[in-house]
Amino acid sequence: MNIKAVVFDAYGTLYDVQSVAAITEEAFPGYGELITQIWRIKQLEYSWLRSLMRRYADFSVITRQSLAYTLRILGLRHDERVFDRIMDKYLHLDLYPDAAAALAAMRGRKLAILSNGSTDMLNALVRNSSLDRVLDATISIDSMKIFKPSPDVYALVETKLGVPPTEVLFVSSNPWDACGAKAFGFHVAWIERVTPEAMALACVRSDLIAPLTLFKALRMQMDEFGIEPDYRIRALSELPGLVATR
Amino acid sequence: MNIKAVVFDAYGTLYDVQSVAAITEEAFPGYGELITQIWRIKQLEYSWLRSLMRRYADFSVITRQSLAYTLRILGLRHDERVFDRIMDKYLHLDLYPDAAAALAAMRGRKLAILSNGSTDMLNALVRNSSLDRVLDATISIDSMKIFKPSPDVYALVETKLGVPPTEVLFVSSNPWDACGAKAFGFHVAWIERVTPEAMALACVRSDLIAPLTLFKALRMQMDEFGIEPDYRIRALSELPGLVATR
Repeated sequence: MNIKAVVFDAYGTLYDVQSVAAITEEAFPGYGELITQIWRIKQLEYSWLRSLMRRYADFSVITRQSLAYTLRILGLRHDERVFDRIMDKYLHLDLYPDAAAALAAMRGRKLAILSNGSTDMLNALVRNSSLDRVLDATISIDSMKIFKPSPDVYALVETKLGVPPTEVLFVSSNPWDACGAKAFGFHVAWIERVTPEAMALACVRSDLIAPLTLFKALRMQMDEFGIEPDYRIRALSELPGLVATR
Repeated sequence: MNIKAVVFDAYGTLYDVQSVAAITEEAFPGYGELITQIWRIKQLEYSWLRSLMRRYADFSVITRQSLAYTLRILGLRHDERVFDRIMDKYLHLDLYPDAAAALAAMRGRKLAILSNGSTDMLNALVRNSSLDRVLDATISIDSMKIFKPSPDVYALVETKLGVPPTEVLFVSSNPWDACGAKAFGFHVAWIERVTPEAMALACVRSDLIAPLTLFKALRMQMDEFGIEPDYRIRALSELPGLVATR
């Protein structure tokens, strides 16, 4: 195997979508974490459902609509200013602490993001986190008018980077994205970010499981598609070592 | 408007998917309801994800894999016999109490099911609940190798019944299905089965919300796609009255 390009998912892989929780908690005390978990699940659902319905709308629309849904079902009233302040954080998400160093250590390969985010969202995010200095490309799925895990979207990597799937290592912490990329034909590293909550899940009775624990576990465990990523790692910091041997 | 056919979603609309809970509770005391909720959410996710990945597998495979996922993340060990007993209940789901009477009252129209279920699963379900006596057709999406809410699937109604979308009333309790059917061009009645849990949701603090309450609410509230069903009803029993005036 000859890895010429390492391509990253953005939301949840390089960028911590849970870093919105400080803002949501400030806006709705007691609900911060819960909002981010429901918001994320519905954001993903909406991307899949709109793709299937052939009613594409870009990721900023989907992100707004899933936040509106979340606040509505939790009965949280809000004005437009609060809503916009939460949305703005999506352009300033925190990088995972090991992201910048891991990317810098792999500069010999082509490095890129392939994300559901709209071009505007991704460009702002990459600039605000200074990743524009190290990435060769930031690829939005927007031009395809369909979201991951459609194979049409993963095909953008070859179009934009000129590297065929067999020479790409795709990196994602999202199980369904790792499976979609593998089904498409990439080499895939899945980041299994094991939290104490997920570890504890198997040990407690169902009436003691908090909703947050369950939501987190539901998003972070490998799915059952009969598809296996090539590598399971625990953090981005493991990547340079893995790539160096390939 | 001239309604020539009334077409029903099966799982969650005519048949109560939660009726599996008695079996899952017996097999895994304390986890019965939780299993059915997680199982259903993952079953839907898998149908959407496989559709997008173009890795179609029929609904019995998806139902098995989502159950395997659920038992795994909850750390519930089991033998094959228990697993098969739970799966078998999916062929014997309870009808909602008002389903048979509502269908019988609309016999002047063409009546059909359009469901994600495989042909075998649906035929067994319909026979076991005696709905074969009143339905003109039971349409599985299986021949299209893609699941709802793809428009290709809703188009099967015209192919099989010979009734154009503008003369079809589509009935579903699943918000994403109601939206998909509306986007396709059917008249749509969405059944909003309001539970006490959903009603209470807005009134309690997040640290007091049980996971089950949240899971139920997440599946039963209308989504934010900017798409509105034509009718919102609370039960199947309201349908004959609604249809009689159209």
